[in-house]
Amino acid sequence: MSERVVLAHSGDPESSAAIRWLVAEARADVVAVTVDLGQGGEGLAAVRRRALDLGAVEAVVTDARDEFAEQHCLPALRAHALDRHPMVAELSRPLIAKHLVAAADEFGANAVAGFGTDVAALDPRLAVITPERGRHPGSGKARCPLRHNIWGWGAHRAPDWSLDPEELTITFDAGVPVAIDGETVTALQAIQELNRRAGAHGVGLLDTHQAPGATALITAHRELEELTLDRELARFKRTVGHRWAELVHDGRWYSPLKDALDAFIADSQHQVSGEVRIVLHAGRAQVRDRRAEEPWCAANAPTWYDSSQRLAQPCG
Amino acid sequence: MSERVVLAHSGDPESSAAIRWLVAEARADVVAVTVDLGQGGEGLAAVRRRALDLGAVEAVVTDARDEFAEQHCLPALRAHALDRHPMVAELSRPLIAKHLVAAADEFGANAVAGFGTDVAALDPRLAVITPERGRHPGSGKARCPLRHNIWGWGAHRAPDWSLDPEELTITFDAGVPVAIDGETVTALQAIQELNRRAGAHGVGLLDTHQAPGATALITAHRELEELTLDRELARFKRTVGHRWAELVHDGRWYSPLKDALDAFIADSQHQVSGEVRIVLHAGRAQVRDRRAEEPWCAANAPTWYDSSQRLAQPCG
Amino acid sequence: MSERVVLAHSGDPESSAAIRWLVAEARADVVAVTVDLGQGGEGLAAVRRRALDLGAVEAVVTDARDEFAEQHCLPALRAHALDRHPMVAELSRPLIAKHLVAAADEFGANAVAGFGTDVAALDPRLAVITPERGRHPGSGKARCPLRHNIWGWGAHRAPDWSLDPEELTITFDAGVPVAIDGETVTALQAIQELNRRAGAHGVGLLDTHQAPGATALITAHRELEELTLDRELARFKRTVGHRWAELVHDGRWYSPLKDALDAFIADSQHQVSGEVRIVLHAGRAQVRDRRAEEPWCAANAPTWYDSSQRLAQPCG
Amino acid sequence: MSERVVLAHSGDPESSAAIRWLVAEARADVVAVTVDLGQGGEGLAAVRRRALDLGAVEAVVTDARDEFAEQHCLPALRAHALDRHPMVAELSRPLIAKHLVAAADEFGANAVAGFGTDVAALDPRLAVITPERGRHPGSGKARCPLRHNIWGWGAHRAPDWSLDPEELTITFDAGVPVAIDGETVTALQAIQELNRRAGAHGVGLLDTHQAPGATALITAHRELEELTLDRELARFKRTVGHRWAELVHDGRWYSPLKDALDAFIADSQHQVSGEVRIVLHAGRAQVRDRRAEEPWCAANAPTWYDSSQRLAQPCG
Repeated sequence: MSERVVLAHSGDPESSAAIRWLVAEARADVVAVTVDLGQGGEGLAAVRRRALDLGAVEAVVTDARDEFAEQHCLPALRAHALDRHPMVAELSRPLIAKHLVAAADEFGANAVAGFGTDVAALDPRLAVITPERGRHPGSGKARCPLRHNIWGWGAHRAPDWSLDPEELTITFDAGVPVAIDGETVTALQAIQELNRRAGAHGVGLLDTHQAPGATALITAHRELEELTLDRELARFKRTVGHRWAELVHDGRWYSPLKDALDAFIADSQHQVSGEVRIVLHAGRAQVRDRRAEEPWCAANAPTWYDSSQRLAQPCG
Repeated sequence: MSERVVLAHSGDPESSAAIRWLVAEARADVVAVTVDLGQGGEGLAAVRRRALDLGAVEAVVTDARDEFAEQHCLPALRAHALDRHPMVAELSRPLIAKHLVAAADEFGANAVAGFGTDVAALDPRLAVITPERGRHPGSGKARCPLRHNIWGWGAHRAPDWSLDPEELTITFDAGVPVAIDGETVTALQAIQELNRRAGAHGVGLLDTHQAPGATALITAHRELEELTLDRELARFKRTVGHRWAELVHDGRWYSPLKDALDAFIADSQHQVSGEVRIVLHAGRAQVRDRRAEEPWCAANAPTWYDSSQRLAQPCG
Repeated sequence: MSERVVLAHSGDPESSAAIRWLVAEARADVVAVTVDLGQGGEGLAAVRRRALDLGAVEAVVTDARDEFAEQHCLPALRAHALDRHPMVAELSRPLIAKHLVAAADEFGANAVAGFGTDVAALDPRLAVITPERGRHPGSGKARCPLRHNIWGWGAHRAPDWSLDPEELTITFDAGVPVAIDGETVTALQAIQELNRRAGAHGVGLLDTHQAPGATALITAHRELEELTLDRELARFKRTVGHRWAELVHDGRWYSPLKDALDAFIADSQHQVSGEVRIVLHAGRAQVRDRRAEEPWCAANAPTWYDSSQRLAQPCG
Repeated sequence: MSERVVLAHSGDPESSAAIRWLVAEARADVVAVTVDLGQGGEGLAAVRRRALDLGAVEAVVTDARDEFAEQHCLPALRAHALDRHPMVAELSRPLIAKHLVAAADEFGANAVAGFGTDVAALDPRLAVITPERGRHPGSGKARCPLRHNIWGWGAHRAPDWSLDPEELTITFDAGVPVAIDGETVTALQAIQELNRRAGAHGVGLLDTHQAPGATALITAHRELEELTLDRELARFKRTVGHRWAELVHDGRWYSPLKDALDAFIADSQHQVSGEVRIVLHAGRAQVRDRRAEEPWCAANAPTWYDSSQRLAQPCG
């Protein structure tokens, strides 16, 4: 009796070749699952059609964009997990794995191709298949959701951008972006609109990735936390956020420590509500009307004429 | 018998007013100390002359630029202490205090105007004078070293920049920048040259400060650490660097914990040697020829054809 | 019109003197609140009577033992906040303050005597009164709930103890002790029974405090965490627990960081369920039947004959 | 040509069997190295003789007790690495490996039996041999230095102890114990004398290990740190100490992070000098004449009569 294997099919040459290989060489029943995380490329209906043409017994397309925005991008936003790159692949991989496991359950498959760590955490009864080093050429054009989705994508040069600054207001409620310029938005809409508007100003070019929406949102969220969080909470939250990013980077999305860090972060956000006004211009998203920050001279210290203990250096 | 008070005199209206007030109201002998940290503005000889004109009994100018670069900026560089602002004031304040205390010793003063926390840590026998809320107008133009020095300065709008990208190579030896484009430099020269060259491309506009040299150096240093540091060391060093920045932000430059954190960081730098090539363009300092970072798809994960446990999503 | 002041009255000489002073000197209406945290000493009815005799307009006794056990001792247990001393006072102070604030609300008082940090966090509209260095002698015998309660108390010498070991089993459900030797217990009962039984063996003599129940519970809870927690979670939880203890030590029970740390710890306890068998003997609470721990020789390492990469030193 | 293999020979049945196996089956030249860490057992000359009888071509005994005390036990003391067990094996393993590598160099061996992680860190050119699951019985009695040495050893029941308390004074200089009761001691002598004296009172029974000297030294060192260290330094040092213990537990003694943590700890010890008087009695080492610790009531807080902001609960 043949195995039934669930495969993530992005439509690109290699995942298509994998279907071919599983069907022809491994003689498996293949269930092809295409998870839409906003990766774009050719139409997903065409991707599904190709899977069936290649011999898959089932081929499904799942729109997981809202789920990805709410369950994966927002936690990354609140953890400020945007150090040198936006962790595009690290955030999407566990969600794709979750949909593969769900498809295995729905279609009675006993194995999943790849995604071993996450699959093992989600359903240890499933086998994980890892085909051997291969033989087959590829020819597709789809973009892989692991490295191109609504949260960011590969970009290797600075984009052109418009000359005039643009301002916008982001409203947060308990750490979640709920409106842009006063218009209510879902998490997905917030990311998409900021990708478009901040992207037009070249914002969010990080090393080899571009993540305009992520960058604008995190810039605004940081500002709001600075205004609303207790200092000790803000400091320890940074430690928690770094550990969160390390874990996700290490492929441990489904782990008890990740859950406990999420509980900390969720609790920290009660006060993180309000509006932040940012200016998009020349590759930067900058908080507007932020008081001129003069860390010791003015903001955090008495001036020369104060009667307090410490004397600030008077500044002209 | 009158008190002898050492005062940090930047030449700006308020520090000049402070001399006047100490002489006229407090009837103190004033020793005016001007510490050159690259703040620019009017000539320091003129600043010194004005102090004497205002009634100071002594007025000295100290070129502390090399000391500032080596003893204060380099530690900040190695700690990556450039989060939202470059801590311009926090880094310079303890050095100015050190020179005030040295002047108190040299000129037999028994008090220092301001800088209380640092002065108390350096010489607890010195009194700290904090004049009352005041009376006198000011009129100078000098730039205060607390918020304008070689490490950064206030900037409130994006600068113009040249259109063509510029490349340069920074060579580090044990975490210290020792050459630019193959030419040996001191720490001060490295910061100054990168302020000029990276500044011409609009690099390092952070919130309300501009710090082109700091930004370019830290970008390059981070890259070199990523290539040379053991992963566990790199992770714990980030915790140490944050604690370092918190302490310095809190005005605890002279503290036992700061010393111990410095010892950790110094020890971590043995392997941080090599060249980093960066491209300056359009407000960004970017590492050049960095391999296209595809964190999970390619770099950190097996491909589809690997025989390893985990399967990477094949990418087109 | 006179002020109405709520005062924590333990019945000891100083709190009695404070009533006298507030009545006679400050001409305040005094509401005396006695919070029972298991401090023992004279009967609380007698304490209440004395408060009225001294001139209090109201005197109430509140049994907060269950609340203290559940809301203050259990969090300390789960945080393993028992380093050199059991933080007896630090844990009780915020609860006493909470009851003072509740009494202020109930009896229409506008001020509280002492407990400033906590009162300010709970109800910033309340004034905090701090009498001056004082005049009046004292003469009572009651034990102060701040330093003697069910969680621990002062003890300056090793107690006598019985000669024979005693075994018992503690059952935890999600980090909460729910049974001893199979008998269901409340948190308060668990602490009280272990104070009695572990105390009879001299367990829990810490520096200058004795805390037998706390010690036995934390010993068992640590063991259960070692068996049930993911290693990475266990390690980060230690960092969280230390920060928790620091905050509580600093008087910041009511703070946003404390709340977020509690959320982390609560989430970490899902798996901490099971039975632990401990032996009480000769001043120690020791986990029974714990496998002989031979950290590298046997438990964590291959033996000589293994075919793995690392060779354990063979042990006789 | 036959291989030349260095083997750690403790004289116990299994390491003797390993010699036999390497000689007979693997046809290797065996260099047997016996490292004296104070493990006791049969005479080391007899152990050496047996190695030669078993066919070793060389057999050397190295007294590494001082080196172990100074280079391995003192760092553990300063890191307070004595949580639930004294890490007896974890501390000795890297030192044994160091002597194996030195012997490989001295005797021209190209391989080491076991200790793979440490050997790889010390000299990656050396092969590491790990024999297969085995064949041969054993018959010796020697104690394995990995689990029995001067720092601690296995113990499964509470020892008998003397009835009368005993006091002693430990003098530290920059974190190093330099005298006991005024008599100058080496690190080794300090550990040995405290093993004897504290051991006679049943001190240091930890889970399944006994470590009287380690326990007495760490108790005294903690106390001295509490009196001499800046609070912020003390708190961060605890984080550093835990990371140190985790690393050593993970077998990463020779690692860049361990070195940097050592640098931090070394720098933190400048002020940790002075005398600590401890009382040994009934299984406990307790600091003597420590002021009655009343954490909030008296030590850290104003009393009722203070004019400060916070009011301590007055205690009888």
